[in-house]
Amino acid sequence: MPKLVLVRHGQSDWNEKNLFTGWVDVRLSAVGEKEANKAGELIKEAGINVDILYTSKLSRAIQTANIALSSADQLYVPVKRSWRLNERHYGDLQGKDKAETLQQYGQEKFQTWRRSFDIPPPEIADDSKFTQVGDIRYRDIDPAVIPRTESLKLVIDRLLPYYQDEISGDLLAGKTVLIAAHGNSLRALVKHLDKISDDDIAGLNIPTGIPLVYELDEKLAPTKPAYYLDPEAAAAGAAAVAAQGSKK
Amino acid sequence: MPKLVLVRHGQSDWNEKNLFTGWVDVRLSAVGEKEANKAGELIKEAGINVDILYTSKLSRAIQTANIALSSADQLYVPVKRSWRLNERHYGDLQGKDKAETLQQYGQEKFQTWRRSFDIPPPEIADDSKFTQVGDIRYRDIDPAVIPRTESLKLVIDRLLPYYQDEISGDLLAGKTVLIAAHGNSLRALVKHLDKISDDDIAGLNIPTGIPLVYELDEKLAPTKPAYYLDPEAAAAGAAAVAAQGSKK
Repeated sequence: MPKLVLVRHGQSDWNEKNLFTGWVDVRLSAVGEKEANKAGELIKEAGINVDILYTSKLSRAIQTANIALSSADQLYVPVKRSWRLNERHYGDLQGKDKAETLQQYGQEKFQTWRRSFDIPPPEIADDSKFTQVGDIRYRDIDPAVIPRTESLKLVIDRLLPYYQDEISGDLLAGKTVLIAAHGNSLRALVKHLDKISDDDIAGLNIPTGIPLVYELDEKLAPTKPAYYLDPEAAAAGAAAVAAQGSKK
Repeated sequence: MPKLVLVRHGQSDWNEKNLFTGWVDVRLSAVGEKEANKAGELIKEAGINVDILYTSKLSRAIQTANIALSSADQLYVPVKRSWRLNERHYGDLQGKDKAETLQQYGQEKFQTWRRSFDIPPPEIADDSKFTQVGDIRYRDIDPAVIPRTESLKLVIDRLLPYYQDEISGDLLAGKTVLIAAHGNSLRALVKHLDKISDDDIAGLNIPTGIPLVYELDEKLAPTKPAYYLDPEAAAAGAAAVAAQGSKK
């Protein structure tokens, strides 16, 4: 039966510095590398043989996958990458300090941009040093689809076509699929798989570096609730993510 | 115009221990990781933007590619992997100490197996701990094609169909293709591109970790001699490989 394993990348250099990241292509911190290594060990211990890996186009997700597959001793698996698995584009907030942004715009706007389902942050200017308009790494896709900001709803809109056509194709063939991606692109996917409402998704936090496993039927519906390979660490991790959101 | 960049993986744990490796899936040593890092820096300094990466199915080539693309800041490039880019299968010699093998079989046989164009070493037994017959990492290809030994000629026979169909497709589309592979699979490819004779190929040594660049025309013929991104280091590296061959 098809199996879908989701891994959210761990700490990046900008998480550490408390900056909004989005599509800015920062690297994993040393802590993030350790988290990725642990994710691979959990995959190996669970006896999961990955048939195909999907990643976003962002280095921190790719690093996570590379490190995890190395520690799982499965470097050989085929890989597909897509911008459609990228993190939510954070618009004009990209590159800004979270605490400063909170002070500048106030708690209400700040929380709306972080957690609203369909209200995106202000658009980033095309001449911003943190825009991805014109970024050479997206030279193989229609320039018109590069976002200038995104809500979670917009992430779902651009992610689902890729899930439905590409990833689902592999799942329907009975494969075990690993996706290494981001907090919001994985929340978008979990919302779809678990049929979570637009209101309830705000309360869902996915911990970093702990593989989340979906076992699916032939219609790609979960046959049982998804489970983390290390449930205790996952609960602690989700609580930490939630606390981070409420503090800042 | 199409550009083809070849990188041979650097030192592995078994190079260090002086064992025949072939298809045994050993990892890079710390020295090998440094070589890969340098290869990526050379690619970056040369201003090469890789459009697509090809690797073998062996971890040491995949590690080389992952590390090199990281230091080139091009982790995002699409990837394809194939067993057809694997190192030559060393048959029953896999896992054996080179010095002991030389002593056991004598200089003539030893040199024949290392450098003959079409005489493969003895076949490896299916119950050897170093065979790849039944290896789960090749579960997605016809089990009948897993070799039990290979000459360089047999490597060419299994590599060329992949080069001609898959890699050539990307080159003919004008892409810049990076291949991270092995001493003998790259010798096979260079023999094809440079039309080297069966006799002369024995004298060709490809240094590790230094990108070799082919600029090709629309019929995929080189428009000028291939060049290394660090010619001085390449000459020293090729001499070292040659000396290693003659010593043992």
